[in-house]
Amino acid sequence: MQTCFFALSGVLPHDESIHQIKKAIEKTYSKKGRKIIDQNFRAVDMTLENLFEVHIPLHTSASISKERKIPSFAPEFVRNVTQMMIAGNGDEIPVSALPIDGEYPSGTTQWEKRNISDRIAVWESDLCIQCGNCSFVCPHSVIRSKFYHKDYLDDAPPSFKSVYINARGFPETKYTLQVYLEDCTGCNLCYEVCPATDPLDRLRKAIHLDEKESRLEGERKNIQYFELLPHNDRPTVNYSTVHGVQFLQPLFEFSGACAGCGETPYIKVLTQLFGDRLLVANATGCSSIYGGNLPTTPWTKNAAGKGPAWSNSLFEDNAEFGLGMRLTADKQVSMAHQLLKKLEPHLGESIVQNLIESSQEKESEIAEQRHRVSQLKAILQRMDSGDAKHLLSIADQLVKRSVWLIGGDGWAYDIGSGGLDHALASGRNINVLVLDTEVYSNTGGQMSKATPTAATAKFAAAGKRVGKKDLAMQAISYGNVYVAQVAMGANPQQTLLAMREAEAYNGPSLILAYSHCIAHGIDMEKGLDQQNKAVMSGYWPLIRYNPVLRKNNKNPFVLDSPKPVIPFKSYAYNELRYKVLTQTQPDDAERLIQLAQEIVDLRWKTYVEMAGYGPNSFQPVL
Amino acid sequence: MQTCFFALSGVLPHDESIHQIKKAIEKTYSKKGRKIIDQNFRAVDMTLENLFEVHIPLHTSASISKERKIPSFAPEFVRNVTQMMIAGNGDEIPVSALPIDGEYPSGTTQWEKRNISDRIAVWESDLCIQCGNCSFVCPHSVIRSKFYHKDYLDDAPPSFKSVYINARGFPETKYTLQVYLEDCTGCNLCYEVCPATDPLDRLRKAIHLDEKESRLEGERKNIQYFELLPHNDRPTVNYSTVHGVQFLQPLFEFSGACAGCGETPYIKVLTQLFGDRLLVANATGCSSIYGGNLPTTPWTKNAAGKGPAWSNSLFEDNAEFGLGMRLTADKQVSMAHQLLKKLEPHLGESIVQNLIESSQEKESEIAEQRHRVSQLKAILQRMDSGDAKHLLSIADQLVKRSVWLIGGDGWAYDIGSGGLDHALASGRNINVLVLDTEVYSNTGGQMSKATPTAATAKFAAAGKRVGKKDLAMQAISYGNVYVAQVAMGANPQQTLLAMREAEAYNGPSLILAYSHCIAHGIDMEKGLDQQNKAVMSGYWPLIRYNPVLRKNNKNPFVLDSPKPVIPFKSYAYNELRYKVLTQTQPDDAERLIQLAQEIVDLRWKTYVEMAGYGPNSFQPVL
Repeated sequence: MQTCFFALSGVLPHDESIHQIKKAIEKTYSKKGRKIIDQNFRAVDMTLENLFEVHIPLHTSASISKERKIPSFAPEFVRNVTQMMIAGNGDEIPVSALPIDGEYPSGTTQWEKRNISDRIAVWESDLCIQCGNCSFVCPHSVIRSKFYHKDYLDDAPPSFKSVYINARGFPETKYTLQVYLEDCTGCNLCYEVCPATDPLDRLRKAIHLDEKESRLEGERKNIQYFELLPHNDRPTVNYSTVHGVQFLQPLFEFSGACAGCGETPYIKVLTQLFGDRLLVANATGCSSIYGGNLPTTPWTKNAAGKGPAWSNSLFEDNAEFGLGMRLTADKQVSMAHQLLKKLEPHLGESIVQNLIESSQEKESEIAEQRHRVSQLKAILQRMDSGDAKHLLSIADQLVKRSVWLIGGDGWAYDIGSGGLDHALASGRNINVLVLDTEVYSNTGGQMSKATPTAATAKFAAAGKRVGKKDLAMQAISYGNVYVAQVAMGANPQQTLLAMREAEAYNGPSLILAYSHCIAHGIDMEKGLDQQNKAVMSGYWPLIRYNPVLRKNNKNPFVLDSPKPVIPFKSYAYNELRYKVLTQTQPDDAERLIQLAQEIVDLRWKTYVEMAGYGPNSFQPVL
Repeated sequence: MQTCFFALSGVLPHDESIHQIKKAIEKTYSKKGRKIIDQNFRAVDMTLENLFEVHIPLHTSASISKERKIPSFAPEFVRNVTQMMIAGNGDEIPVSALPIDGEYPSGTTQWEKRNISDRIAVWESDLCIQCGNCSFVCPHSVIRSKFYHKDYLDDAPPSFKSVYINARGFPETKYTLQVYLEDCTGCNLCYEVCPATDPLDRLRKAIHLDEKESRLEGERKNIQYFELLPHNDRPTVNYSTVHGVQFLQPLFEFSGACAGCGETPYIKVLTQLFGDRLLVANATGCSSIYGGNLPTTPWTKNAAGKGPAWSNSLFEDNAEFGLGMRLTADKQVSMAHQLLKKLEPHLGESIVQNLIESSQEKESEIAEQRHRVSQLKAILQRMDSGDAKHLLSIADQLVKRSVWLIGGDGWAYDIGSGGLDHALASGRNINVLVLDTEVYSNTGGQMSKATPTAATAKFAAAGKRVGKKDLAMQAISYGNVYVAQVAMGANPQQTLLAMREAEAYNGPSLILAYSHCIAHGIDMEKGLDQQNKAVMSGYWPLIRYNPVLRKNNKNPFVLDSPKPVIPFKSYAYNELRYKVLTQTQPDDAERLIQLAQEIVDLRWKTYVEMAGYGPNSFQPVL
């Protein structure tokens, strides 16, 4: 645009203006290497070569409109307020239309069809092996799966795709993988992770990108039909497998995160696993932005109108904020128990006892407790006492709450680390999920204590010289904290296991999740591949430390990843954050990459020793 | 007093008033156990039994005054301002007499003779083996030692004590241990730690408490004479031994800390070791109060007028504050080097090269650098350029600085832990000394993350249920942080070694120092004994983790304390903080002490594994 401006406006002599633009490019990108500079030069030159006059017609003739009206069955608030904001007319909303208490409805991204990609994921049902990987890693929850009785297909649109489910003993059950194409960003992670290749055409896989336009109308109908199919019942799903969990409804969808985001898949899986029992304290950072920016929020609710309770807090106090959620929930449960006992003569001994004492470990048990709570609420509504009203107001808390503290490394390793340490030390049943991009992603790439040796970042332009903080080891030192380090691109099964173990552990839990990021300077399509290389190089060992094992006289420390098979630089030098130094300061780069390798080796050695393996043996657990 | 008041005033019926007082006692002290309540009851009863009228004479007849005038050779500010404050007449000081920039002179506790104890430490020179232990542990630096040529004794007062020094090859060298009796608090730690017992009288030791009054005049003269003896030259002293280091002048003396304080001896030794090169950032807490309260400060300076630079900062930012001291010192050194090179034509190549390149590892080398800096300053003073003036203003920084961040566990484990973590992660050459009393001592005994399982504290009145944070392990996880855990009551030699290694290490260092405290509910005379029991039970393992060892292919983790020989409760139940629970909640107490023992066992096992010893072997290093 700048090139065009100077070429057309004539405010500077032509040659002089182009010279100045190129000088500025050289200065700005000198640290990114010659290739980037040359690409920019070429962009300038091609701009000049392709500059031509566009005649603007006096009247518009196109009939296609990308703007879709929000359908009439959307909630009133969405139709009256959210829609205006999406259309960029927020200033015209009268103050009287806005919520007086700042409360906004959740689940509103579904009404904001962003259509940002011309190419979208397409399912080839004939190739699919139903592994669930594509859906598991999809950053925007646009790939959904359901199984259902084949009779449901009687009314399906003709283009609705389905296959028989890959499971013995269910000959009448069909399976559909539905892509929400208007929300698809075309990031291609699904294709990269898909293991089902056409033997006749190695590039064709069970899911791949293809053009969108011609599919729009048909798929809209398919999605509408897919939504009418019942959600698979939570207790019927196999929680221990990636494909099993993908039958659960995600309660986090269509966020505004980057295409190919490495963070959001972790959050999505959390909402599938723990659904409407989630209480989330979200630290400031990318996840607070894509998690709760106006006009829409990706956090949503299930068919019963229940969803996670989510709130954002500051970098510096999010752990305490989440701990407060836990303390509050615990207090409300104990108040509810007291009231139940007090009202026992009116409620009956059996329901009170069941409500207080029933196990809520399995999903089926939680469903039963939910049912009991509904019964209780129905009774309480017919009662008139103050105690009954009080109990009614907190009865939902009798269903086990799952408290999660979520944030990035800027929060957990740096600004909020004191509070996180405090919350972990409390011994309370909180779960912490750190979306570790190893840099302050949202504010533009500043170094954090999670930034590794030899990587560049703002405030570490010459490569970080000290090591990445080993937050896992710090938490392990408490002895009673469940700790896991995961990378879904390397082992989604281990990610799943860690999340379930963390939640099941009745004490503090910490999961460090490797999250690839545009700030790494990578081809985002290869994000999961980089996760795998991080693990294969030994840089990011997959671990689980479960204090429960100690009670059974087992070693609580489990190393889930195999012995390193590639050097650190084979992983690192696919990323511009490392690579750039080889161009700007080759000697330093060489020295730092060696130091980084030494740190990787030392850490691996420490972990192997903790796992109790001999120096040459290895005993993978998963 | 309350008993007297009610007995005399008659505002309540006699029996009723005594009943109410006892009821209040019972309520207040019920958690401290029956014994304390009964002691209070007895105090009330004895008050009544001993209540008698005192006839006040019309005229005073006593000739003794405890108030000593500050001598005329004291600095002007001390005579005009400090003295007024000490006398309680601060309100009468004119504003014009106060420093306009808030700067107060250091080394002023020496003028405030508090005379708080009737019984003071007395040296029995015939029994003394010159081990230095008494002086090492003295919390108020009132026990000093010097060696000197015997000719110095020619002018000594007749009561001045001396013996020949215990060292081969110095037949003409005498040794004196001088007690500053007006500053002695009578805490008795010196007696407890003294190994030199009279074989004919097991209770008589080389140092012991005795009455003060009759010794006052004579000892004042002795002290005056002792001060005239030259301080032992820093390079001539053996830094590796307790008695050697006690020949060094402490630059922290006569503080207002509790009698028998477990913190101050550590600070004193620091000032002896690193003297006037110290920069101290002191977190809020006991150490900031006794370290810098008006009207006097215990931080002092040597004969050359140089002393530690000390400043107090907040709980929440002291680590960053101290890191800033380091960065500033480093920056000033690099500025000084630049200026030296610029001025080389005027200064001469040799002095510039020596100032920049000379080693400053040994004390003798530091003395040489100091001498070179003096020469430089003399030359610069004769020069007129701006560069010369600038260099003159920072030339003192060319002498290696020793930056220490000091504070309690409330700072390091809790409120300042995020900042401490950040400072340690910086990789910079800072040294951290944590005076770990395991509780917020200064603010009245609130629980911190350093408070151990089973101990009571404010906010943990029913005994702490979670474990003490293992700050040592957290710091070790960085890999490049020197970490030590010390307890001078168990092994002063190891304390000394850790301090010297920490300072010598060119990177971040952390020393966790067990500090017994009145908040533990102990007989303070037995403070050092409790330190020893903490180590003997395996509760407080003595460790040193030195990253330098790894470079030499050695295990950086060294376990300095022997296999536990007593159960945890043999240590814990000498302290009211643990014991009280056995009276108030015996069942919980039993459960918690078992849990605490399990945590001790687990931690010991982890440390033994890290040290690389087999499960049954033990290889002490010291």
